[in-house]
Amino acid sequence: MTPLHLSEDRYFDPTPKQKEIAKHLYSRVATLPLVCPHGHVDPRLFADPDYSFGSPTDLLLIPDHYIFRMLYSQGIPLEKLGVPRRDEGAVEPDHRAIWQLFAENFYLFRGAPTGMWLRDELYTVFGVEEKLTGESAQDIYDQIAAKLASPDFNPRKLYEQFNIEVLCTTDAATDPLEHHQAIRNSGWGGRILPTFRPDAVVNMDMPGWRDNINALSKISRIDVTNYQRYIQAIENRRAFFKTMGAAATDHAALTAYTEDLSPQEVEAIFQRALKGVASAEDANRFTGNMLMENARMSIEDGLAMQLHVGSYRNHNPLIFERFGLDKGADIPLQSEFTRNLHPLLNKYGNDPRLNLILFTLDETTYSRELAPLAGHYPALKLGPPWWFFDSLEGMKRYYTQVMETAGLHNTAGFNDDTRAYPSIPARHDLWRRASANWIAGLAAQGIVDMEDAEEMIIDMAYRLAKKAYRL
Amino acid sequence: MTPLHLSEDRYFDPTPKQKEIAKHLYSRVATLPLVCPHGHVDPRLFADPDYSFGSPTDLLLIPDHYIFRMLYSQGIPLEKLGVPRRDEGAVEPDHRAIWQLFAENFYLFRGAPTGMWLRDELYTVFGVEEKLTGESAQDIYDQIAAKLASPDFNPRKLYEQFNIEVLCTTDAATDPLEHHQAIRNSGWGGRILPTFRPDAVVNMDMPGWRDNINALSKISRIDVTNYQRYIQAIENRRAFFKTMGAAATDHAALTAYTEDLSPQEVEAIFQRALKGVASAEDANRFTGNMLMENARMSIEDGLAMQLHVGSYRNHNPLIFERFGLDKGADIPLQSEFTRNLHPLLNKYGNDPRLNLILFTLDETTYSRELAPLAGHYPALKLGPPWWFFDSLEGMKRYYTQVMETAGLHNTAGFNDDTRAYPSIPARHDLWRRASANWIAGLAAQGIVDMEDAEEMIIDMAYRLAKKAYRL
Amino acid sequence: MTPLHLSEDRYFDPTPKQKEIAKHLYSRVATLPLVCPHGHVDPRLFADPDYSFGSPTDLLLIPDHYIFRMLYSQGIPLEKLGVPRRDEGAVEPDHRAIWQLFAENFYLFRGAPTGMWLRDELYTVFGVEEKLTGESAQDIYDQIAAKLASPDFNPRKLYEQFNIEVLCTTDAATDPLEHHQAIRNSGWGGRILPTFRPDAVVNMDMPGWRDNINALSKISRIDVTNYQRYIQAIENRRAFFKTMGAAATDHAALTAYTEDLSPQEVEAIFQRALKGVASAEDANRFTGNMLMENARMSIEDGLAMQLHVGSYRNHNPLIFERFGLDKGADIPLQSEFTRNLHPLLNKYGNDPRLNLILFTLDETTYSRELAPLAGHYPALKLGPPWWFFDSLEGMKRYYTQVMETAGLHNTAGFNDDTRAYPSIPARHDLWRRASANWIAGLAAQGIVDMEDAEEMIIDMAYRLAKKAYRL
Repeated sequence: MTPLHLSEDRYFDPTPKQKEIAKHLYSRVATLPLVCPHGHVDPRLFADPDYSFGSPTDLLLIPDHYIFRMLYSQGIPLEKLGVPRRDEGAVEPDHRAIWQLFAENFYLFRGAPTGMWLRDELYTVFGVEEKLTGESAQDIYDQIAAKLASPDFNPRKLYEQFNIEVLCTTDAATDPLEHHQAIRNSGWGGRILPTFRPDAVVNMDMPGWRDNINALSKISRIDVTNYQRYIQAIENRRAFFKTMGAAATDHAALTAYTEDLSPQEVEAIFQRALKGVASAEDANRFTGNMLMENARMSIEDGLAMQLHVGSYRNHNPLIFERFGLDKGADIPLQSEFTRNLHPLLNKYGNDPRLNLILFTLDETTYSRELAPLAGHYPALKLGPPWWFFDSLEGMKRYYTQVMETAGLHNTAGFNDDTRAYPSIPARHDLWRRASANWIAGLAAQGIVDMEDAEEMIIDMAYRLAKKAYRL
Repeated sequence: MTPLHLSEDRYFDPTPKQKEIAKHLYSRVATLPLVCPHGHVDPRLFADPDYSFGSPTDLLLIPDHYIFRMLYSQGIPLEKLGVPRRDEGAVEPDHRAIWQLFAENFYLFRGAPTGMWLRDELYTVFGVEEKLTGESAQDIYDQIAAKLASPDFNPRKLYEQFNIEVLCTTDAATDPLEHHQAIRNSGWGGRILPTFRPDAVVNMDMPGWRDNINALSKISRIDVTNYQRYIQAIENRRAFFKTMGAAATDHAALTAYTEDLSPQEVEAIFQRALKGVASAEDANRFTGNMLMENARMSIEDGLAMQLHVGSYRNHNPLIFERFGLDKGADIPLQSEFTRNLHPLLNKYGNDPRLNLILFTLDETTYSRELAPLAGHYPALKLGPPWWFFDSLEGMKRYYTQVMETAGLHNTAGFNDDTRAYPSIPARHDLWRRASANWIAGLAAQGIVDMEDAEEMIIDMAYRLAKKAYRL
Repeated sequence: MTPLHLSEDRYFDPTPKQKEIAKHLYSRVATLPLVCPHGHVDPRLFADPDYSFGSPTDLLLIPDHYIFRMLYSQGIPLEKLGVPRRDEGAVEPDHRAIWQLFAENFYLFRGAPTGMWLRDELYTVFGVEEKLTGESAQDIYDQIAAKLASPDFNPRKLYEQFNIEVLCTTDAATDPLEHHQAIRNSGWGGRILPTFRPDAVVNMDMPGWRDNINALSKISRIDVTNYQRYIQAIENRRAFFKTMGAAATDHAALTAYTEDLSPQEVEAIFQRALKGVASAEDANRFTGNMLMENARMSIEDGLAMQLHVGSYRNHNPLIFERFGLDKGADIPLQSEFTRNLHPLLNKYGNDPRLNLILFTLDETTYSRELAPLAGHYPALKLGPPWWFFDSLEGMKRYYTQVMETAGLHNTAGFNDDTRAYPSIPARHDLWRRASANWIAGLAAQGIVDMEDAEEMIIDMAYRLAKKAYRL
């Protein structure tokens, strides 16, 4: 048996001086509670005290597009990985066979963050001490399955074990938040908060927008027949989310375009959309207008405003048609913030009551646009490296390209942004180690003293996220 | 008291082998004279032998937008930092209180170049040995104030103490250069040279262009009523600057667009501008045309030509209206050089008499456009990392993304680009240390031998700047 | 005499732990055969058993635009370097004088990959142990000339000495491949394969396209009077190249634009081109259409498809007019893949029979577009860092920006892409050392174990290239 390789000094620079400082700094934060202000864990996990994760394959492979996209890129059909088809066509039913196929191809993940997280998760959460290969696959499957069957292994118990302080989910504007309500009613002490994500009722070019407007009318009890009522309904939902503990809103947009539409223009566009005749240009301008509106609302209700820019969703139509959304086929685009955000920042950027937290899939904007903007506007903060850049090298680029100009205190700490609940500790640990290593580099180069270094690591591991989201 | 932390090995890689070489290389250049071919120090400092810097806050905080932008980004109003309002509205008058506020927030500058320069400046120029915090603030204020009051602490004495060999200022085309004249007349031996910056009479979209043309007519004694006379007036001023010792011109443009307008077109645009009816398109084309004209003039009169591209000036209208220009609200834009400079390089790029020195705020152009262009065209050189990238990590990116392709000798050494006179030694020292460290890395990896390494560090610290600006 | 400095540990990180691992990994692949799936070596070298390289200057300087562009950038006319003029005007005839001039300016190549390759080549291929300077120039010239005169120094003997396993050339669609035929007929055992490059009959905006179509008619014996016959002729040539051993096609395009033109549209464009009235827009769309067609053909005939995007060819008209193509005046442009490749990937991206290998001159596309695309689509692989980025720092950026997201197995190993035959071992050695060093960094940071590290280095040095090109 080849032992699973999980060094205690992992992710630290091999230079002795830097590594020594990194270890020291990491030791200051390794056991701090996890603050999770943005992610996609299903609140049902915590609403149902008897929630079961299913098989190891159910838990770790089938829902994780970070993992199956890599196997798919090497020619393995998603059907063979058990990913359900929209037409309910046949997919591999044997979860052990899927696991075996994954294990035999686990070499594809050498050096990839998915591999690093999974290795950590297997060891730390499931107690696996063997390297995952074709030979060890079934043995490890058994170990995971045994853990999953144990009474201690349920979402609420893991919440304690993971030392989570707060975990925010992401929820549609029209979501009744019944699971969040059930969690509250259950008397369980975990802090699971909803996040208001209105994309489905904002982006007119999304399939189903009209239906979503109907759903918005229904749940808000405001008949959304014009723009004014639409805004009232949005405000109504934000207020409800806030009573349910929400700390933030979240907005995904193809670009960072913002525009303050005149009342006449916005009403005309909205009416065209209700009739199903809005153009792509209408949709783009309306989204830009709604970013302005939501910034205004955030100033009023105090919810942090997250903006995720630049993902070309469903780039592969065959995969979308056969398997649906979120199947590893979303590809980044070039992005621009300096001009696009100008209208919004012009109007609200000087207001420190606004906490607008930006995320990008175009790393060229780090040093060119985002750091200079965040280093000036009181309303702006930068979120951590997102998606493809939530990785060791992605973090190194972020630290070196953002921090000098933006300043650490204009960043928003870490969030794990994951739907893979058991991977949360591994993700935070990677960030904490990478942060400790970066600060150790600063200390070893004489840029900061140890007093500052110790403050910085606590900021990065814990305090900045709480501050940016006012948690 | 916490001591101010200023390691003798600062900014060197912690790997022992590289650090040892870096220290050796740095020792070869640490005391070489400072060549300052581009910056914004006010020539009045040297014209008036009794010039006073005012209070520590006057000197170090109120004029430095690198510093107050960071405080502003955290919600501290500029009024509280003593930044004067254009409407002469009330701002904090107590310089000790401003200094206290700054010191209490100095943690914001951890890892930022501003923090690194200031720490160095406090220690090296002002003899401060205590870390700047809220507790030590008043004590340090006293120490700086005492220095400022001492007879040895005036701009001319500091010029000697800093070991400056030459310092170029930046001056409007219509500037009579009376301070430069006064310096010459004074018999003082320092070498303070003007730089010809015609932006205010070139960029038609700048406020006051028409007034600036009037001023140009007046000072050149050429009645600028058409394009031909305009060009004559520009040439007249360049010639005057040259008699005053100028080594270079400087041009700021939103883009690197160049175009050779026909005599008819350029006259039509110029006439529209004189009548106040030029369009944005006119302004852009005219600027592009004037870059061509100035390149031609540079070939004729031998002045180096600096081109700074890509800053969206005054991105924050509220700050601009209340406080004016240069208040930390200038944000970079994406830039393009390959197509935009094609007309200029097509016409003048093969002429080795031209020294066109390029500066970018878009680091993606380093490896993609600027290094390949500079590695081919005899007329091109690359300026050092500019503004937000004048930092340790900015320099590292510049070295690794530019040098392999452009070659060291197609770069222009360092310039400090600062209006903060006492920060000059710290800025050059950071460049020299970063350069020594980079070359040490090459030597430690067996890329260059020590003989080459020693030549390279002298080039970077001293010779390349003199050569590019023919100083 | 200053010894030539060629450390055994060159290009490895100076950190002892990383260097030790890097040396170990490098030792595993240092002597593996060289797989050369893409390059520009002239097949005549191998067709003629008595081929002579000419003088040292003929071999090393006059044909190598990587070298003379750097000298030109410093104001040395190409005529002084013996580069032949199209008008047959006078150029320096004295090869010793040219070599002397080069040697005196060899300091320009400090830190540049060209300098690193040449140093390695001088030592390893020519046995030179002295540093190249003005003083040593003639001595070294003599040593090289002596080697060139020796009977062991001919292309076929070097092929064995270099331990080349396979070497692919790049050949026009209309090339009769007579040299390849002669190699086959000679009975010599070296494996020299043609590569099908149809650019000259595809890109309508290239000078001579109409003549090339005539040549295509002639060699294919298909009268290319319409689009259907044009496609037949292309297919005919691909089939011929395949019988001659071709493993791949190669396509150069200004952008990655792809489009499936309707039969009517494509015929109309083709007819306009035959009449010499096609527009730039026509040419762009036609190229995009032909990328689609060639992808289809690659699925059918199994040839790997290489796509090189983003070079603005002949940026300097003066150089082009006087000296022609490939004179160091090709400059990169911003590139975009996510939208541009969408039509092609939509149609063929899910087909694992296609091996589309992408090359970019815009490094910003690595992490933003190329790695996410390659990490999803079965038909996509990423080629190694190209041209200006085929360098130590270019490789480091490639590894850190590509590998985490794409995964190593979605990359295509190394190719040397050179016309400078004797530089091939130095180029592969640089890649192998850089790869070993990168993997050693992963191992030293606890990201991969040594078992994985040893697999990875063999993949990068040898196996991935063979797999991607099915060699």
